[in-house]
Amino acid sequence: MRRNVVAPEGLIAHGRGECFDYLLGERTNHFALKAVEAAAALILTSRHPVISVNGNVAALVPEEVARLSEVSGAKVEVNLFYRTPEREMAVYEALKRAGVREVLGVNDATETIPELFSERRRVSKEGIYSADVILLALEDGDRTEALVKMGKKVISVDLNPLSRTSQTSTITIVDNATRAFPTLVKAINSMRGRQDLEEVLRNYNNRSTLGEALRFISGRLLELS
Amino acid sequence: MRRNVVAPEGLIAHGRGECFDYLLGERTNHFALKAVEAAAALILTSRHPVISVNGNVAALVPEEVARLSEVSGAKVEVNLFYRTPEREMAVYEALKRAGVREVLGVNDATETIPELFSERRRVSKEGIYSADVILLALEDGDRTEALVKMGKKVISVDLNPLSRTSQTSTITIVDNATRAFPTLVKAINSMRGRQDLEEVLRNYNNRSTLGEALRFISGRLLELS
Repeated sequence: MRRNVVAPEGLIAHGRGECFDYLLGERTNHFALKAVEAAAALILTSRHPVISVNGNVAALVPEEVARLSEVSGAKVEVNLFYRTPEREMAVYEALKRAGVREVLGVNDATETIPELFSERRRVSKEGIYSADVILLALEDGDRTEALVKMGKKVISVDLNPLSRTSQTSTITIVDNATRAFPTLVKAINSMRGRQDLEEVLRNYNNRSTLGEALRFISGRLLELS
Repeated sequence: MRRNVVAPEGLIAHGRGECFDYLLGERTNHFALKAVEAAAALILTSRHPVISVNGNVAALVPEEVARLSEVSGAKVEVNLFYRTPEREMAVYEALKRAGVREVLGVNDATETIPELFSERRRVSKEGIYSADVILLALEDGDRTEALVKMGKKVISVDLNPLSRTSQTSTITIVDNATRAFPTLVKAINSMRGRQDLEEVLRNYNNRSTLGEALRFISGRLLELS
């Protein structure tokens, strides 16, 4: 936050995530692994995947974003809820320092997402605007919903299985971004070239995966009571 | 935060609370009402109650602190985890503006809490140091534990039934401070003069109240799944 990468509001959002991470036992559970497998299949069969990066993601997992972009060929785009030139530059610098080759969304955010207002709607023509699959993490529900309405397939990393982002995404990985990104990189590497990727996708049901996450937390609380 | 009342770390803690408030349905539940009744009985039978105020409490419920102090006769003491002269003054001002008559803990924090280090251990002789009952909210677990070890009876307001503050307090009100403080003010006013206050206290079991809170959240998640 002091380097302008994260907005003060982003700290509150981070705290909400921390709470769910405690409830999940701070580990990657079976429902997260199932979602990661489907996400890897979707990325490997996509035409033009893009990783959408906000301040919290740039602060938590900049190296992991670089690695995921490398192994998947996904472009990386800066996409801020509270967009100011200072924060754009801070996030851009954090990603560059972490090894991301090309960072979209800073000077080229000339296209718009319908349904969103003001600076939040700006996206890059080469990036999110023309993507078929978008991976995002710790994202605002309005934006996720708007991307889905544009016809994008959305993979989200979100610790709260009840959030609007979790509920509207095509595939929701209910896990901490610090664990989910490396797990996804490994899955992409190990699943590359498999012939059954379409089948993995057909067999995946996001609603039932979210239900498993909720039942897992519920069971843990019952034990602890 | 911009006025120095809340520390940036306090925003993350606030976010953790927000998450639990969603899980609680953002309302005062039966287990919270039971704890409020016991808390009112404890305050009404105490010799020297003190309300310990940190930055988050001063930002969220300054008027409610003033009202609770008035109806209960409890002293109000500033007690900061990240203590700097700027934050001391900002919290002092926020409480004064809200109508708190006497604010301890700013220039008179000359006594110390054993077991705590650095600035966090400083307390006022007239306030927390000599109190028999301390009410605190959104408080760090180390500090709560240290106060209990000093022999204080601690009433805490905390949205997370699993936090160390919740687990070590004498009475834990699992509710949002914005709802718990007014509810406690009402309970003190309506229970004043009752002859069965000691009995209310004897019948109260904090462990089973916390268990009810956990089972309530667990049940809600199961429904939502």
